[in-house]
Amino acid sequence: MPSLPKTLTVAMADTVEQVETAIDILLPRSSMAEAKLYEAMRYGCLGGGKRLRPFLVMESARLFGVSPACALRVAAAVEFVHCYSLVHDDLPAMDDASLRRGRPTVHREFDEATAILAGDALLTAAFEVLTDAETHEDPRVRCALVSALAKASGPRGMVGGQMLDLIAETQSLDIGAITRLQRMKTGELIAFSATAGAILGRASPPQFHALQAYAHDLGLAFQIADDLLDVEGTEAETGKSVGRDKPAGKATFVSILGLDRARDQAGRLADQATRHLEIFEGRASMLQAVARFVVDRRS
Amino acid sequence: MPSLPKTLTVAMADTVEQVETAIDILLPRSSMAEAKLYEAMRYGCLGGGKRLRPFLVMESARLFGVSPACALRVAAAVEFVHCYSLVHDDLPAMDDASLRRGRPTVHREFDEATAILAGDALLTAAFEVLTDAETHEDPRVRCALVSALAKASGPRGMVGGQMLDLIAETQSLDIGAITRLQRMKTGELIAFSATAGAILGRASPPQFHALQAYAHDLGLAFQIADDLLDVEGTEAETGKSVGRDKPAGKATFVSILGLDRARDQAGRLADQATRHLEIFEGRASMLQAVARFVVDRRS
Repeated sequence: MPSLPKTLTVAMADTVEQVETAIDILLPRSSMAEAKLYEAMRYGCLGGGKRLRPFLVMESARLFGVSPACALRVAAAVEFVHCYSLVHDDLPAMDDASLRRGRPTVHREFDEATAILAGDALLTAAFEVLTDAETHEDPRVRCALVSALAKASGPRGMVGGQMLDLIAETQSLDIGAITRLQRMKTGELIAFSATAGAILGRASPPQFHALQAYAHDLGLAFQIADDLLDVEGTEAETGKSVGRDKPAGKATFVSILGLDRARDQAGRLADQATRHLEIFEGRASMLQAVARFVVDRRS
Repeated sequence: MPSLPKTLTVAMADTVEQVETAIDILLPRSSMAEAKLYEAMRYGCLGGGKRLRPFLVMESARLFGVSPACALRVAAAVEFVHCYSLVHDDLPAMDDASLRRGRPTVHREFDEATAILAGDALLTAAFEVLTDAETHEDPRVRCALVSALAKASGPRGMVGGQMLDLIAETQSLDIGAITRLQRMKTGELIAFSATAGAILGRASPPQFHALQAYAHDLGLAFQIADDLLDVEGTEAETGKSVGRDKPAGKATFVSILGLDRARDQAGRLADQATRHLEIFEGRASMLQAVARFVVDRRS
């Protein structure tokens, strides 16, 4: 992983560890007859992933002096939603993926019905975690978090983007449609993550909007980098099936822009994301470093 | 439909109409590329069903003088959750049902991937509706509703019950385990519905608990009646595939208790449910009538 500042690598590794512990506590094993459901939820959520969304929650919360314990609960909730979407996306009727984070996908390790229910349960659990008084003492803040997360992950956000993604398999989309698709499919949840700290910390509107603008550019840069990895990466590096887009004849940023222009565009978006955070006068340097990391990553 | 008081039939028909209108407004058609997702959500939610859960919300809200417009939004949210669970339950990997409410199931009318996403979107939309200020002016009440709905539909509630239901296909369960399964699978959401009015109207703890006790008995009575219909009903009456439990060798209240004792038990539970509402001194007569309706219904 070239040219990453040591501090970002360490901070991200810290978050990975904290999120792992938080999820382990929030989704305990069960000794009841339905234990398999909890096992599948844990399998779909624990032991893998860069935890980019939790990292954005933790770092945005730190900007406003929010208690890390509260931020960590929101970080876990976002990860529940992200992981539920992966579990459902991997299903035979959707992407029919066999590998995720270097391991069998949930429906391969368990079975399809359990994977459907585990995804459903993770989504529900996310909202339950957010409404608990431990997440924030003020129910207005908890309600605002639920509202923002529901919008980001619902039909006008992530799920709508997943639907567009299915449609993209049979219809050719132009660059505008692909951009909208990706903004919905991955951008909205990334935007929720980067603004969650602002909600928790009751940030001013300009601060909130700076984080939102940052997140929108970051989200697109992330997705272009993902498309590049699908072409250039290996299964060993990414831990998931690669080269899936081309045989499917699916329009991606890379298929439309070509490799070089896609790479340039990702870099430009990362720079632009960074500049949105200048109003924090250096206190958001970690979030700025993430923008570079996202386009330089190999997995 | 024998021996139903005219007023209940009329009141239930009113709710069916109101809920239909509310869902039509809350889930409008889309002119965007992802229109199919909205069509599938609407198809899964509109045009059918007794709307028992919405009726419980409306009637419990009326006990505490809650505005019908607010109650109707909560009623729609509960129905979103109920319908999402049906859409996912009907999938090939789950019950593999082809008929629901006399029409093809969502995955038969659309496709499997769309059915998975439409279910996900309905669940998410339920929480979004609850957090809107139009549902209640006080965010503490909105937050309490989200929390209660998430608990009722999550791994310790409905989804946990669906998991137990899958396990029941291959393991023999005793009456205690079946009772717990059904309490989770259908009872918790029914309990949420009957207590939602108490949350909206800030009822006293004894009033809340009376509604909760009522709902628990009602939920079990409802499920036993459902098992009886699977044996005694016809597809034309119920609008869904019947006789599915026996070939599957699945333990149900009927397979364990036998027809007569199951019918007696449903009646006893309905009576008991009715008695829990005596503290409302006649003002809950509609809810009491529903308990009788649930065990007498033929569909």
